[in-house]
Amino acid sequence: MGHKTTQIRLTSRPVGEPRDSDFEVGTAELSELIDGQVLLRTIYLSLDPYMRGRMSAAESYAEPVELGAVMIGGTVCEVLESRSPNRAPGDLVLAFTGWQTHAVVPARQTRRLDPAEAPISTALGVLGMPGLTAYAGLLDIGKPEPGQTVAVAAASGPVGSAVGQIAKLKGARAIGIAGGPVKCRALIEEFGFDAAIDHRSPTFRADLEAATPDGIDVYFENVGGPVTEAVVGRLNPFARIPVCGVVSGYNRTETSAGTDRLDLSAVLWQILTRSLSVRGFIVEEFVPTRQADFLRDMAGWVAQGSVRYREDIVDGLERAPEAFRGLLAGRNFGKLLVRVGEDPTRD
Amino acid sequence: MGHKTTQIRLTSRPVGEPRDSDFEVGTAELSELIDGQVLLRTIYLSLDPYMRGRMSAAESYAEPVELGAVMIGGTVCEVLESRSPNRAPGDLVLAFTGWQTHAVVPARQTRRLDPAEAPISTALGVLGMPGLTAYAGLLDIGKPEPGQTVAVAAASGPVGSAVGQIAKLKGARAIGIAGGPVKCRALIEEFGFDAAIDHRSPTFRADLEAATPDGIDVYFENVGGPVTEAVVGRLNPFARIPVCGVVSGYNRTETSAGTDRLDLSAVLWQILTRSLSVRGFIVEEFVPTRQADFLRDMAGWVAQGSVRYREDIVDGLERAPEAFRGLLAGRNFGKLLVRVGEDPTRD
Repeated sequence: MGHKTTQIRLTSRPVGEPRDSDFEVGTAELSELIDGQVLLRTIYLSLDPYMRGRMSAAESYAEPVELGAVMIGGTVCEVLESRSPNRAPGDLVLAFTGWQTHAVVPARQTRRLDPAEAPISTALGVLGMPGLTAYAGLLDIGKPEPGQTVAVAAASGPVGSAVGQIAKLKGARAIGIAGGPVKCRALIEEFGFDAAIDHRSPTFRADLEAATPDGIDVYFENVGGPVTEAVVGRLNPFARIPVCGVVSGYNRTETSAGTDRLDLSAVLWQILTRSLSVRGFIVEEFVPTRQADFLRDMAGWVAQGSVRYREDIVDGLERAPEAFRGLLAGRNFGKLLVRVGEDPTRD
Repeated sequence: MGHKTTQIRLTSRPVGEPRDSDFEVGTAELSELIDGQVLLRTIYLSLDPYMRGRMSAAESYAEPVELGAVMIGGTVCEVLESRSPNRAPGDLVLAFTGWQTHAVVPARQTRRLDPAEAPISTALGVLGMPGLTAYAGLLDIGKPEPGQTVAVAAASGPVGSAVGQIAKLKGARAIGIAGGPVKCRALIEEFGFDAAIDHRSPTFRADLEAATPDGIDVYFENVGGPVTEAVVGRLNPFARIPVCGVVSGYNRTETSAGTDRLDLSAVLWQILTRSLSVRGFIVEEFVPTRQADFLRDMAGWVAQGSVRYREDIVDGLERAPEAFRGLLAGRNFGKLLVRVGEDPTRD
């Protein structure tokens, strides 16, 4: 008997902010399992900023999602059926099955999770891709030294909060930039940043200056736009800027006027006169070399409470498009997950 | 008896292109020599793009020239009088005495040149600051590998022509970008580039694409603006971009509309999606670590003819402002020098 999946498919390429009409909800019949495959039930779907790039046909670091295809995404799933000796029904796994309730995939495309080690949802957050992004980007590109100042925007998000906490563990000062007083308070109280700055405040630039009396040595870049323009003015000579995202630009269209005041030559001038190192990276670059170090270090830090994390869980697959819009607008607080089905490890 | 010097002084900060009225020519009385000092007669004055930055009060990597002060600059001089045991009248030295005919400086601020080793003017060019800029920027930041493609703009200039030739010596393909057919021909015939592309040609973008079938792995940045925007489209993943200058932006004013189409977020997006490394540098950074290697390697390459150079010599100190404007506009061809006084090593 075939199994069904409910899917959210991309039906048109969004112009600017993705709308509900860019997606359709539908069901599909899954193929019968062949040897080596497993049938999965989605528990958590991860929503991440990079997905905006995959919705567009414009050049990016990966192929766009085809029109009519299910939106891609990382998931935590339960194995319902298995034709692999390595997976049994009831196993909980990390997979990449996208915006849908069920999927049939090769067992080797899944990684088994042990709920006794860490909550299974963390495999999509602090112990997953966002955590590795923070770890490798900060340590391998940012290279903070004790006493130096590390700044990060979107600091209450899964990447930013890990960046700040790892910076502190390495003896650096951590400056977090976030939107609104609630997030800013959490940066200090929950995540232990040395200073939190609200980019929505009219005194943002002055606040940033006051919080960085010795300038900024590492700016972990994930937003772009006016926040970055303000940070540029505080960068010390030889500062390092790992670039892992440009959220402020993801919804821009070809014709929408950018609000950035700096153009190419002005950016190059800043890079030149401050001897800056600006380095873009995609987390996949570091999986072969740093995944093992990351899992060892980060699991230890999380277990001992020196790295904390926050999750923002939305219930129901059908709310994914709305939640994704909120992500791009900064309305979530913590790692954004969609609970697609019941989590058997929680009540 | 005091000695006199004729000087070109900066009298106002240029807005856009420097005008004659931003300078004044005057004479000054030099102080009597004290122990350790030498009296110098300027033979060659180096004109370099970085000087435009020093004319402005805007933030740069060095203090601006004060209004009323003599314009700074590297020089090759003859020692006329010496109160140092290490220098004798007739010695030829590298100094930093600026836009003037004579100066009194500590002998230790000069470096003795041996005309038997290389023409003394090369101490301001291929064996001087522009040569070290090319050498360290390309090898230490650009890190070209055999078979990779290196592109450089202003390729017929002293930095660009050295970049291309060093790239070839390291087994890379060298693509030069220059303005006009005369310079482009010289890139191939004189400097041995694999391809030369005229950025003034209406087919510039198509020509660049045709010349870089395997993309670009190293872009040695010294111009910015539309040339860079075209190059960005050809950059391979993990390309390295040493940034040593942004000539196209040097004359821009706060209010002049930039012609760049890329703004900050768009630049970051390119850096992100191609995993680019962009690194600004000032040549002084490499003097402690690389000056000795550079002089050894480059003097050898020049002596054996595997690195060639071209000089563009203007006669008369009073023509320095006009020649400097030409430099920013790309009207010179080769290392731009002002012959301020007779060169005793040439007829």
